[in-house]
Amino acid sequence: MSDTAGKTIKCKAAVAWAAGKPLEIEEIEVAPPKAHEVRIKVLYTGVCHTDAYTLSGTDPEGAFPVVLGHEGGGIVESVGEGVTNVKVGDHVVPLYTAECRKCKMCLSNKTNLCSSVRETQGRGVMPDGTSRFSKDGKELLHYMGCSTFSQYTVVADVSVVAVDEKAPLDSVCLLGCGVTTGYGAATITANIQEGDTVAVFGAGCVGLSIVQGAKARKASRIIVIDVDSGKENWAHEFGATEFINSKDITDKTIQQHLVDITDGGLDFTFDCTGNTDVMRSALEACHKGWGQSVIIGVAAAGKEISTRPFQLVTGRVWRGSAFGGVKGRTQIPEFVENYMNGELKVDEYITHRHDLKNINQAFDDMHSGKCLRAVINMFS
Amino acid sequence: MSDTAGKTIKCKAAVAWAAGKPLEIEEIEVAPPKAHEVRIKVLYTGVCHTDAYTLSGTDPEGAFPVVLGHEGGGIVESVGEGVTNVKVGDHVVPLYTAECRKCKMCLSNKTNLCSSVRETQGRGVMPDGTSRFSKDGKELLHYMGCSTFSQYTVVADVSVVAVDEKAPLDSVCLLGCGVTTGYGAATITANIQEGDTVAVFGAGCVGLSIVQGAKARKASRIIVIDVDSGKENWAHEFGATEFINSKDITDKTIQQHLVDITDGGLDFTFDCTGNTDVMRSALEACHKGWGQSVIIGVAAAGKEISTRPFQLVTGRVWRGSAFGGVKGRTQIPEFVENYMNGELKVDEYITHRHDLKNINQAFDDMHSGKCLRAVINMFS
Repeated sequence: MSDTAGKTIKCKAAVAWAAGKPLEIEEIEVAPPKAHEVRIKVLYTGVCHTDAYTLSGTDPEGAFPVVLGHEGGGIVESVGEGVTNVKVGDHVVPLYTAECRKCKMCLSNKTNLCSSVRETQGRGVMPDGTSRFSKDGKELLHYMGCSTFSQYTVVADVSVVAVDEKAPLDSVCLLGCGVTTGYGAATITANIQEGDTVAVFGAGCVGLSIVQGAKARKASRIIVIDVDSGKENWAHEFGATEFINSKDITDKTIQQHLVDITDGGLDFTFDCTGNTDVMRSALEACHKGWGQSVIIGVAAAGKEISTRPFQLVTGRVWRGSAFGGVKGRTQIPEFVENYMNGELKVDEYITHRHDLKNINQAFDDMHSGKCLRAVINMFS
Repeated sequence: MSDTAGKTIKCKAAVAWAAGKPLEIEEIEVAPPKAHEVRIKVLYTGVCHTDAYTLSGTDPEGAFPVVLGHEGGGIVESVGEGVTNVKVGDHVVPLYTAECRKCKMCLSNKTNLCSSVRETQGRGVMPDGTSRFSKDGKELLHYMGCSTFSQYTVVADVSVVAVDEKAPLDSVCLLGCGVTTGYGAATITANIQEGDTVAVFGAGCVGLSIVQGAKARKASRIIVIDVDSGKENWAHEFGATEFINSKDITDKTIQQHLVDITDGGLDFTFDCTGNTDVMRSALEACHKGWGQSVIIGVAAAGKEISTRPFQLVTGRVWRGSAFGGVKGRTQIPEFVENYMNGELKVDEYITHRHDLKNINQAFDDMHSGKCLRAVINMFS
């Protein structure tokens, strides 16, 4: 038992007080975990586009004030009653996609979208409907069931997984979202097979993790499409066989170009841009008869995808992927082992590192075109 | 060898001279089959909504004058050089979805959409780029590689399959489109499993063939949705467990109603209406995490499907089906055997019968709401 167990902890956190404003570093209070909850000392967190999306105010479900962050690595500080899957001192990754192993979704074995804490998580509270975060008595909301922008956070026990303690937490944190989302989309959702042809729209952390997954599955062609040629080297580093700057294709649509250079289209395409026009291009770049397009990017509020139904009647399949189809408690330990064995690149995505006090810099990094992931050291 | 082999045959056909006009019964000339072509004496043909769609002029690829019809049953009159898969006297069903067993599509084993004759078929000509039909020297176009509204037709050898000659051709003709399209969509494209929940939008021949396929697979619920309550009895006859007139759902969307009464949505939904709004409803009525929606209906020119990408990111899958995913030459003989064994209902879809001279009546039947299929006797 740690000596803080059962007590409220005062610690630093980056608080999002309002949409469109920079985060502010505050001393906040983090209440002890209730039954089936886990309090985690967060050592490192990545900063993801989804955090920026919510902070920007365009996320229609975003609510403030809130402790953002969902890509963390930490150590269990204390556990509430009934917690059996992790113990004090475990190295852990919080999971924004829970895995309860009891709900209809988990038991279906057809999806990773556990429904156990979905409703309260969406409202920014713990499963009992209340928050564990406050600042001078004012309640702060949780975010995506994780809130890793605080030095201490509380998560549901179904929303955390223990990992090999030899794995460096400043790398493993990226398995809480970006790397897992992309690699899983390629190897689980799409289940790419040897020889398949693949196109990935958007060369960020998620897109380049798809590239890595496609390479691991021995895809014959891995084409990365982005509007920034500065990303070409990265694309090749992670395994792309070709890079196309879509701005260079001016005489026809990008989907027509891809169909032309791939003898009828691709076996799998992935959208990692969140742009609904790109989602359509990705679908229409698929091969007739069997090509599948996977949507991963988060679209702006109110935006819709469209195509002619003929695209589907002639055999293309449109689907999506959340957290790469990965069941976190079951599969993240394997991802960590693959990283430790050198089979899964993770460190290569970390282009920037900041101390907590400079966390706002990480949001600027993302818009620079030079950043795959910034990792925040929460205690320096 | 028949004594007409190698000669042009004069026979009756229902010719579509122009969009939006009734068919006219004409004496036309049907040239002998060239290499890898088969001339068929068509005894019976069904009349399908796709024929009506093209005749109406709203099909952007429709061209005139043309011999419509694609749901036929007949007997091989003569064959061109190199034809090995059927012989004179065989009872056959023409296939609007060819199966060459040699093209990239056929060899993929992932689709039934053979590409061997696709381009010329789309232009209304035989694979050599010419037509076998003429009227007083004026060329008439072929249609969907079948043109079963003529007493004699010529098709590519990859576009025809021999069937058990004990099977009555006035029933078996429906396996050339409607029944196969629906039953195959349920059992091949969707591959419904025991206990799955299913909703079918549109209670026509195709929709009720999906119902039959879902029942054969022991689906636990089979909900048919239509705007015409007159179809409720049919729905139950073919195996529906529930019927909903969507006009009766006035306090919420039909997809919300379906989600509400099925504990979160359906495992499989099917659109057989061609209405793009219904296609959206069908997708959004699917269960989060795994529900799949299959588009079968042909949409009006220029119409597009839309939804929020979140629908796919949360695990729904949008796909389509053409000819039920059935490889005609390989699988239609099994469909015929199942019909002969009493395992597959076919006769039950035939609500109207007409002689060739009254074929226009069949188009009126379709709009009456009282018709699943009209079968035309081509020689009475």
